[in-house]
Amino acid sequence: MSVSRAFKVLVSHPQVPVAALQLLRSRGAETIICQSVPPSRDEILEKVGGVDAIYWAHYQPLNAAILDAAGPQLRAVSTMSSGIDFADVEEFKRRQIPLGHTPGVVKNSVADLAIGLMIAAGRHFHAGRRDIETSQWLTEQIDWRMGVEIRDSVVGFFGFGGISQAIAKRLQCWDVDKIIYTTRNRKENDIDYKAEHVPFERLLQESDFLVVAAPLTNETRERFNAKAFAQMKCSAVFVNVARGGLVNQVDLHKALSSGQIFAAGLDVTTPEPLPADSPILKLPNCVVLPHLGTQTMKTTIEMSLLAANNIINAIEDKPMVSPAY
Amino acid sequence: MSVSRAFKVLVSHPQVPVAALQLLRSRGAETIICQSVPPSRDEILEKVGGVDAIYWAHYQPLNAAILDAAGPQLRAVSTMSSGIDFADVEEFKRRQIPLGHTPGVVKNSVADLAIGLMIAAGRHFHAGRRDIETSQWLTEQIDWRMGVEIRDSVVGFFGFGGISQAIAKRLQCWDVDKIIYTTRNRKENDIDYKAEHVPFERLLQESDFLVVAAPLTNETRERFNAKAFAQMKCSAVFVNVARGGLVNQVDLHKALSSGQIFAAGLDVTTPEPLPADSPILKLPNCVVLPHLGTQTMKTTIEMSLLAANNIINAIEDKPMVSPAY
Repeated sequence: MSVSRAFKVLVSHPQVPVAALQLLRSRGAETIICQSVPPSRDEILEKVGGVDAIYWAHYQPLNAAILDAAGPQLRAVSTMSSGIDFADVEEFKRRQIPLGHTPGVVKNSVADLAIGLMIAAGRHFHAGRRDIETSQWLTEQIDWRMGVEIRDSVVGFFGFGGISQAIAKRLQCWDVDKIIYTTRNRKENDIDYKAEHVPFERLLQESDFLVVAAPLTNETRERFNAKAFAQMKCSAVFVNVARGGLVNQVDLHKALSSGQIFAAGLDVTTPEPLPADSPILKLPNCVVLPHLGTQTMKTTIEMSLLAANNIINAIEDKPMVSPAY
Repeated sequence: MSVSRAFKVLVSHPQVPVAALQLLRSRGAETIICQSVPPSRDEILEKVGGVDAIYWAHYQPLNAAILDAAGPQLRAVSTMSSGIDFADVEEFKRRQIPLGHTPGVVKNSVADLAIGLMIAAGRHFHAGRRDIETSQWLTEQIDWRMGVEIRDSVVGFFGFGGISQAIAKRLQCWDVDKIIYTTRNRKENDIDYKAEHVPFERLLQESDFLVVAAPLTNETRERFNAKAFAQMKCSAVFVNVARGGLVNQVDLHKALSSGQIFAAGLDVTTPEPLPADSPILKLPNCVVLPHLGTQTMKTTIEMSLLAANNIINAIEDKPMVSPAY
């Protein structure tokens, strides 16, 4: 390991895993750690002056004002996130300041959660719990709370990047009937997962489980609306681990309450946090989570180390591991 | 398909899948279907006289009184269940009346549910839902509701029969660190699942996820008690899809509330139905389901067809597919 000369890093959140801070310090960093939770812009602006690098561990705007406050010696910035919609990437390009982020490593933790949602929604985890709490546990009905199995089913993905592929990999030993996916262009490695590229209409019509794992863009916004749900099977389980904005939530509510589709599992909603009186929480056939996709220590540590390595590389005049542009 | 002479079958529950009734009828059966839900012993005793076979689709005592009411022409009985603790098997042996049941086919549906419980418990599905409903969704904490992943973990099974093997099969593509199991004797096919036979102590000490899938016997009753939980990792996730009686539920409650273990997912409890005011329902780190393990149409139909085939075989003087003795 080479020993670098000392450099200063502003860390925007006090809960960044220790492993990442230790890594930075082992390469010569003095870490200046903001203490406010939620992070305070005032504290950041006060402490950022004169640093060589910024470790941005939250989701507030990362823009010219921050770069100005840091000063012209700034040489590296990395977020600890996959999505960077809060960063003004054009401003970074203009100033030629390297910007990194942490995609890729989130896939395992989100894939587990997505399969958990497929099963929890398909097997009435929420309704079953409610039945116990309201003394409606019926043992004498053969056809009570009948769910759907993953075996022999068609699992469809909207988007087929790292997360979808991590799910598809886990399902290889599950005796599914078929894996299909919709993306703009066919992925050349789809053969590794025995997955077939299909048009959006076929994805809707054939999926027994439909998992949304694609970025939110102008093209994908509210792609799952009344028209889409109308084409799905009434036995279909819909899962969203991407962004709430890909779904028209009012239309989803209608599709679930009318029985147009069987069930849904959502890690993401509109808005977030979801209000406690949201109608979607009233549905027996909808499992809802508070955006826990990446919330495991293992994945959070991997994200934190990747962000640290992005910064270290830039300080040592090497390309970032995961540059944002 | 051979055409048999006509025979009469009493069916004890009106919700037996149509597929099984059609199969019976296609082989010459006249089906006499009890209409009460829950099944009424009086109705059964009234209708059972003179039948050639009984299709027992519920869990009330199946004993000498029923066999007496049926009469000496009775030639076949099958339950639609894996467990047959409600049947007086000795009485069947004494009278030499063939008795069938439906083990084996339940494994797929229970395996899905067990993996769903591993993830739901390990990733705070219940606590997360409660956070939304109480407006405690905290987005600005990096270390909020941190869960555990299946990848790189040690998955341990108490019991390694059909259900455990179906789970182990599904986990082959999941990059787990190790699969271990405890049974009285090593299973020779464990190599198919890269699974290692270990003593009970090692199962407790090494498992990151510990799944209970073994019959309830005098030997296994309350095997998971304070002494067992004290040996488990504080990061361990405990899952029970077998019978509530294998667990001392008061001890489990203590282990979960004190943080001795991380979380639990239970499809089975003591008693069933579980009262709505059970203390176990108050725990944020315990996912509880109302015994939904076999509740899928696919598995229920498979169970119903197996029960029908047990009866058809016996009527045609062939061995039952799944004899109970």
